[in-house]
Amino acid sequence: GEQVTIAEYLLARLEQLGVTSIFGVPGDFNMPFLDYIEDHPKIDWIGNCNELNAAYAADGYARVKENSIGVVTTTFGVGELSAMNGVAGAFSEMVPVLHIVGAPSTAQQKKKPMLHHTLGDGRFGAYIKASEQITIAQAVLMSKTNATSEIDRILTECITRARPVYLMLPTDLVSQKVPAGRLEVPLSRTPPPNNPDVEKFVLDEIVKLVDSADQDIIILVDACAIRHNVRQEVDDLLTRTQFPVYAAPMGKTAVSENHNRYGGIYIGSISDPSIKEKVENAKLILSIGALKSDFNTGMFTYSIPTSSTIELHSDHTQVQHAQFPGIGMKQLLPKLTARLKQFESSASQLAVPHYKAVIPNEQHDDISHAWFWPRMGAFFKEGDVIVAETGTSSFGILDIPLPERSVFVSQILYGSIGWSVGSTLGAALAARDKKMGRTILFVGDGSLQLTVQELSTMMHYGLKPIIFVLNNKGYNIERHLHGMHRKYNDIADWQWTSLLTTLSNPNPQEKPKSKSYTLTALLEDKIFSNTGEMQLVEVVMDMYDTPRALQAAADLSAS
Amino acid sequence: GEQVTIAEYLLARLEQLGVTSIFGVPGDFNMPFLDYIEDHPKIDWIGNCNELNAAYAADGYARVKENSIGVVTTTFGVGELSAMNGVAGAFSEMVPVLHIVGAPSTAQQKKKPMLHHTLGDGRFGAYIKASEQITIAQAVLMSKTNATSEIDRILTECITRARPVYLMLPTDLVSQKVPAGRLEVPLSRTPPPNNPDVEKFVLDEIVKLVDSADQDIIILVDACAIRHNVRQEVDDLLTRTQFPVYAAPMGKTAVSENHNRYGGIYIGSISDPSIKEKVENAKLILSIGALKSDFNTGMFTYSIPTSSTIELHSDHTQVQHAQFPGIGMKQLLPKLTARLKQFESSASQLAVPHYKAVIPNEQHDDISHAWFWPRMGAFFKEGDVIVAETGTSSFGILDIPLPERSVFVSQILYGSIGWSVGSTLGAALAARDKKMGRTILFVGDGSLQLTVQELSTMMHYGLKPIIFVLNNKGYNIERHLHGMHRKYNDIADWQWTSLLTTLSNPNPQEKPKSKSYTLTALLEDKIFSNTGEMQLVEVVMDMYDTPRALQAAADLSAS
Ligand SMILES: Cc1ncc(C[n+]2csc(CCOP(=O)(O)OP(=O)(O)O)c2C)c(N)n1
Ligand SMILES: Cc1ncc(C[n+]2csc(CCOP(=O)(O)OP(=O)(O)O)c2C)c(N)n1
Ligand SMILES: [Mg+2]
Ligand SMILES: [Mg+2]
Repeated sequence: GEQVTIAEYLLARLEQLGVTSIFGVPGDFNMPFLDYIEDHPKIDWIGNCNELNAAYAADGYARVKENSIGVVTTTFGVGELSAMNGVAGAFSEMVPVLHIVGAPSTAQQKKKPMLHHTLGDGRFGAYIKASEQITIAQAVLMSKTNATSEIDRILTECITRARPVYLMLPTDLVSQKVPAGRLEVPLSRTPPPNNPDVEKFVLDEIVKLVDSADQDIIILVDACAIRHNVRQEVDDLLTRTQFPVYAAPMGKTAVSENHNRYGGIYIGSISDPSIKEKVENAKLILSIGALKSDFNTGMFTYSIPTSSTIELHSDHTQVQHAQFPGIGMKQLLPKLTARLKQFESSASQLAVPHYKAVIPNEQHDDISHAWFWPRMGAFFKEGDVIVAETGTSSFGILDIPLPERSVFVSQILYGSIGWSVGSTLGAALAARDKKMGRTILFVGDGSLQLTVQELSTMMHYGLKPIIFVLNNKGYNIERHLHGMHRKYNDIADWQWTSLLTTLSNPNPQEKPKSKSYTLTALLEDKIFSNTGEMQLVEVVMDMYDTPRALQAAADLSAS
Repeated sequence: GEQVTIAEYLLARLEQLGVTSIFGVPGDFNMPFLDYIEDHPKIDWIGNCNELNAAYAADGYARVKENSIGVVTTTFGVGELSAMNGVAGAFSEMVPVLHIVGAPSTAQQKKKPMLHHTLGDGRFGAYIKASEQITIAQAVLMSKTNATSEIDRILTECITRARPVYLMLPTDLVSQKVPAGRLEVPLSRTPPPNNPDVEKFVLDEIVKLVDSADQDIIILVDACAIRHNVRQEVDDLLTRTQFPVYAAPMGKTAVSENHNRYGGIYIGSISDPSIKEKVENAKLILSIGALKSDFNTGMFTYSIPTSSTIELHSDHTQVQHAQFPGIGMKQLLPKLTARLKQFESSASQLAVPHYKAVIPNEQHDDISHAWFWPRMGAFFKEGDVIVAETGTSSFGILDIPLPERSVFVSQILYGSIGWSVGSTLGAALAARDKKMGRTILFVGDGSLQLTVQELSTMMHYGLKPIIFVLNNKGYNIERHLHGMHRKYNDIADWQWTSLLTTLSNPNPQEKPKSKSYTLTALLEDKIFSNTGEMQLVEVVMDMYDTPRALQAAADLSAS
């Protein structure tokens, strides 16, 4: 049959999976593979400034391009270890990312000479051991014999379990020829079928509970409703049943925040009171894709008894206290919808609070969080991709409804600051592929310092996100958690509005574009809103002012 | 007896070890410990922009402050994984670094709630498992009972074996009280004594060999002569014996390059011919602290038979083919000097090439590598700290003698680009402590993009290094190794001379200080040379021009 190189086989699989961009940084041990990426007609090489940002970008890409995966390639040792924190965050938050590590040749790996990028003690296997902690599967290609089956194995793990995988690609295998035949059968992300007897039992139990709850049931969508690919199934459930629906922070935009049955964000005791009241007094909660981390649950303040809860997950179901391993929601949901639609007429009577944000009428010129977030809510448009960094941004955005078809991107469980900048690069590329709206980033001044160089990459590849930098002179979230007046929560002050010109090379004949506007005027400016080019807005805010939800979380954390 | 908090105990040990700066980034899990650092009268907190750069800075600090250690503190998961590549480089190159990871409380680590920064699956032990690959010892403090002995254990490993160690510090232990008594006995870096019988045998063997070689012996100093603290012993050996001495690249400035018996850098087949001739024709080579990595040996082209070699190391000796484990050079060297000084009169007759750099007379205005490096050689002064990034910089500098009491800082074995920027921050702080001369960095445009933000930290803490940025429009070293015309070896073009003003907040009334000079005029300018403030020089160079040694290494790599 037809033969292709291992590199071509791998790229063909990635193309099948909808990958159009590969992130990374070159190095001696991956350059032979990069030749194939650069020459590929359908896949673009995105040269990042550093490997951590490249991994962040692969993560952001995969979050927006939901039926694809993120791909980052680095070089042995120095590159792969730099990327590790980015891959770990994807592991934590169920984001499918492939990490391809270009490695010394198979001969060198057997002989173990003291090559650059090694630890000097011959332990060529040390780096993959480290990566084993933060990937669900690894493949070390050592011969062409099993190369294609190994590639397929880890890619299948990646797409079915939505977590990162690791591929070590020695230089001498890149151009080795392998049979192309397996490519005819696309990889499947279909989970194994639920055991039909158990599934029927579970369905019966759920229906009984809904019935005895007098249909006083609400749905709570969370991270894995997005990450495990059940948006459509959830949407069908809502349409057929009209159950009220709320979202945990990590489930924000899993369901349209404009949906008539949607009531807003539930964050335990720091929820808006009307939401808290509705959720905690419901007789039954159908939780879909829960990921109950501290910041996702108002510091573990859910007040929902297990006896009132049904939890659906990708690989198990829990009905009150009963666990049903292996019963996955992808297949369960449509059957559940069919059984529950009988309750539509009564469920549709249940009241849902109106989730909205009101711009307060403040009598001063300072930009407060209380004003800023609702005002940004009025700025958003349908189809926008909205990225919020850990800090005041990820808390402030929670009280703001996002428009139809918008996608919310944040790292609420893992919370690595600086992630949002790399993630915005990947998200913007995916949004461009999917012909979505604008990509808008909210990032704190502290966080931006960790990963600022990736603004350069955005410009270099012609992307046009709008970057709002919150200049509050330091790590505001940390001040509120510990060390309110500590110097270690201060940062160096930068010329934020010079960043885009400094990290690029605009026509020296043109005057630099940095100008001062009032934020109100800027947000109302048509040219600014229509992103003819990438823009960075410095938002000067009080050092200690903080969003409602962050203050509440900090108060809980202290107690 | 007196009681102190665990934090105070740890800082007291670090103060005893000569630590004056601790690098890192705050986080919830290390802020309680940071309070103690900020309040410490003798140790400064250096707040970095990101954790990888913080680890690089700890590495650079330890390289210049040779009898101390580098210390970096990060937060659980997101911080520590970001730092890993920096710690791995220190592992590889024998640099003593302590990585303190602020972690969840002991109660949280037992209960394992889904905290931010975790992997979401309860594996609180995953991160330390990753770090075990790139540290020689780890301590997880879980109670105050053994806290001081654990701290002492890993610090002792760190200073005796000159490799990184890891300390996990849960939040609830930071302020727990422990006895201070152990502090009265300083930690010792003295290696265990050599077995006297074996040591005498080794000495006799070496003397026999030197005698039968008619004293046609040369000394070759390498990385571990510096890293394992035998500068003085080597200097004594040279003074008493007058043997000719050469250095491997990683041993550059182990011995003064101004020494009358010093002949220059030996890099295997890519050495200067007169050096190659002398070294490879010597009857006997006494190698001190060898670390025979690819770039350190001209791509493994040493032409020195084992039968002509004696190798001294920190923990073993090799005499021709005979291995002597446990015979360390720290104690062996003085005894060897005593036995070898008898050969001084004949050894001092051996000719040594004059290691010098001649500035070529070029008839064009472009700045070539052939001109640039010798011209920089004339710019250096006694006591300068000279940092060279992997790339054209680390190769170009090899042919240039550095002045008396200068220190050469480069990462020739591990070779992680961007390292030199973080390393320069640490090196400059150590140089300031030690009242050395200027700190001068040579970094490629590609490398600078990985870690540029740390320029901000240098300014923020009042340091005044001189940064030479080689603008050759991309990854020149990579072009010469593979992909000469590939787009992936291009980078985004930046306004390099705007970086210092953009990454700081100078008085807006002052005009920005970026000006254009010819490089010659700049280097001759007295104000520029005397570093009243930090300066960045953009050196525009041809895209493909490369130093002699790098061209030779690339040619060897291709064959
Ligand atoms: C990689 C990493 N290092 C450190 C932290 C700890 N941390 C969490 S939030 C934060 C401060 C963020 O400050 P900023 O971006 O300015 O946000 P804001 O001031 O708006 O809260 C820090 C240092 C982290 N989450 N990730
Ligand atoms: C962290 C890391 N990523 C990638 C590499 C691979 N690499 C080695 S040298 C180099 C290019 C350096 O380019 P530059 O700094 O511009 O130096 P020059 O052009 O002067 O050679 C790269 C990408 C590396 N060594 N370290
Ligand atoms: Mg801030
Ligand atoms: Mg370059």
